[in-house]
Amino acid sequence: MIRLRIDLGYDGTAYAGWARQPGQATIQGAIEDALAVVLRLEAAPVLTVAGRTDAGVHARGQVAHVDVPAEPDNLARRLNGLLPPGIRIRAVTVAPAGFDARFSALSRRYSYRVADSFPDPLHRHDTVVHGKPLDLIAMNDASALLVGEHDFAAYCRQREGATTVRRLLRLDWTRDSDDVAVATVEADAFCHSMVRALVGALLAVGDGRRPASWPAAVLAAGVRDSAVTVAPAHGLTLEEVRYPPDEELAARAEETRRIRS
Amino acid sequence: MIRLRIDLGYDGTAYAGWARQPGQATIQGAIEDALAVVLRLEAAPVLTVAGRTDAGVHARGQVAHVDVPAEPDNLARRLNGLLPPGIRIRAVTVAPAGFDARFSALSRRYSYRVADSFPDPLHRHDTVVHGKPLDLIAMNDASALLVGEHDFAAYCRQREGATTVRRLLRLDWTRDSDDVAVATVEADAFCHSMVRALVGALLAVGDGRRPASWPAAVLAAGVRDSAVTVAPAHGLTLEEVRYPPDEELAARAEETRRIRS
Repeated sequence: MIRLRIDLGYDGTAYAGWARQPGQATIQGAIEDALAVVLRLEAAPVLTVAGRTDAGVHARGQVAHVDVPAEPDNLARRLNGLLPPGIRIRAVTVAPAGFDARFSALSRRYSYRVADSFPDPLHRHDTVVHGKPLDLIAMNDASALLVGEHDFAAYCRQREGATTVRRLLRLDWTRDSDDVAVATVEADAFCHSMVRALVGALLAVGDGRRPASWPAAVLAAGVRDSAVTVAPAHGLTLEEVRYPPDEELAARAEETRRIRS
Repeated sequence: MIRLRIDLGYDGTAYAGWARQPGQATIQGAIEDALAVVLRLEAAPVLTVAGRTDAGVHARGQVAHVDVPAEPDNLARRLNGLLPPGIRIRAVTVAPAGFDARFSALSRRYSYRVADSFPDPLHRHDTVVHGKPLDLIAMNDASALLVGEHDFAAYCRQREGATTVRRLLRLDWTRDSDDVAVATVEADAFCHSMVRALVGALLAVGDGRRPASWPAAVLAAGVRDSAVTVAPAHGLTLEEVRYPPDEELAARAEETRRIRS
């Protein structure tokens, strides 16, 4: 079997998320089905992905891997010919030894877009509208207090036996234009709904409902706070997945598997 | 009557252009109908617009005016409540004396987006896909030769009795990302399909089919050249309309009316 690395992007608007679910349109299902057609396989091969995005979440720099019997020519082009325009394969390459799209990753970087004055109609699918103007200085003050390795239980949906410790490498806000605030959020990994819960807490700081110290106080309390509103899915886009140099891929995968369980 | 200035943006994908046409979904028709409802008018008032965009063309900085019997409170918010999410009113203000959205304008600025490697699914509605990589240096060389006041007959659909002389104030290309080339095009005014014809000629330079001197040679020939392919509508967005200071609005409108006819 040959392991292929697949780089791709998608508009998540019309999909029930990455993960295949019976009777639902999913990114994973669409690509696995297209792979089965192109590779003439009886059963669809199973993709492993770096970021299991929720319903409505987008990706520009998603990475997946799949093990296949042989590598056909022009696989990216042939997949794009079968896939709907909302899913585009950027590249298909033979993965280096030890590569695992999920466990070899060093970090995932997301963006979150919020329009706080004029909602650009051309960005209505990937930008959330916020009714009040946002104070980015206060939001960046609050964000800085969250960076680092912490137990993010307060911002995670708890899963039995799984750690909620994560290393938040970057969290800051800039203006894309006068009208749009964009968060850049990078971590070794994210637990479920973590980015959207962090953004929700920071929006409360940005429009003056909470002080800049509040998101860190919620973090320190270590339990989910009903005052934190999880921000809508469609503002979120997976921008990039980072991997170590090829010779460290296998060791990184080993280490991640150990830590996550 | 009170003259109102309306600033707005729209996703042109689902519309047969700005101009009202019977039995078609148009931007002008949607806004005029919404105005009639909010203002409780028997007949829809008529909008005058700075840039009459074609079917599929978008706008972020469109400007229109309308004369109404009285200015109601919160007109922008009430219009947005009635309009589909693909059309958003940025602001409605009482126009200064002498203001005419079309004739007072000093210039219109458009952007044109072309993806020449990976087509981002989130931008598939406002970015054209070009199959070959573009050489922006050659395209900028060719563009520089077009700037200035010229008879753009070669890039215009001829209209009886109307001048095709225009002053092209700016035409250049930058990369928005590794994947996308963006043209910025500004002129006092554009004749029909002019931006898309210019972009079509420049794409032929960018992918090596024509030398950088070619678009200027077509301009100098002064007649439409069948080798120029008009670029698709959906890459084009009206970004900004510029007006002179208030005290010059009436004189500018006077001057423009004289030149155009």
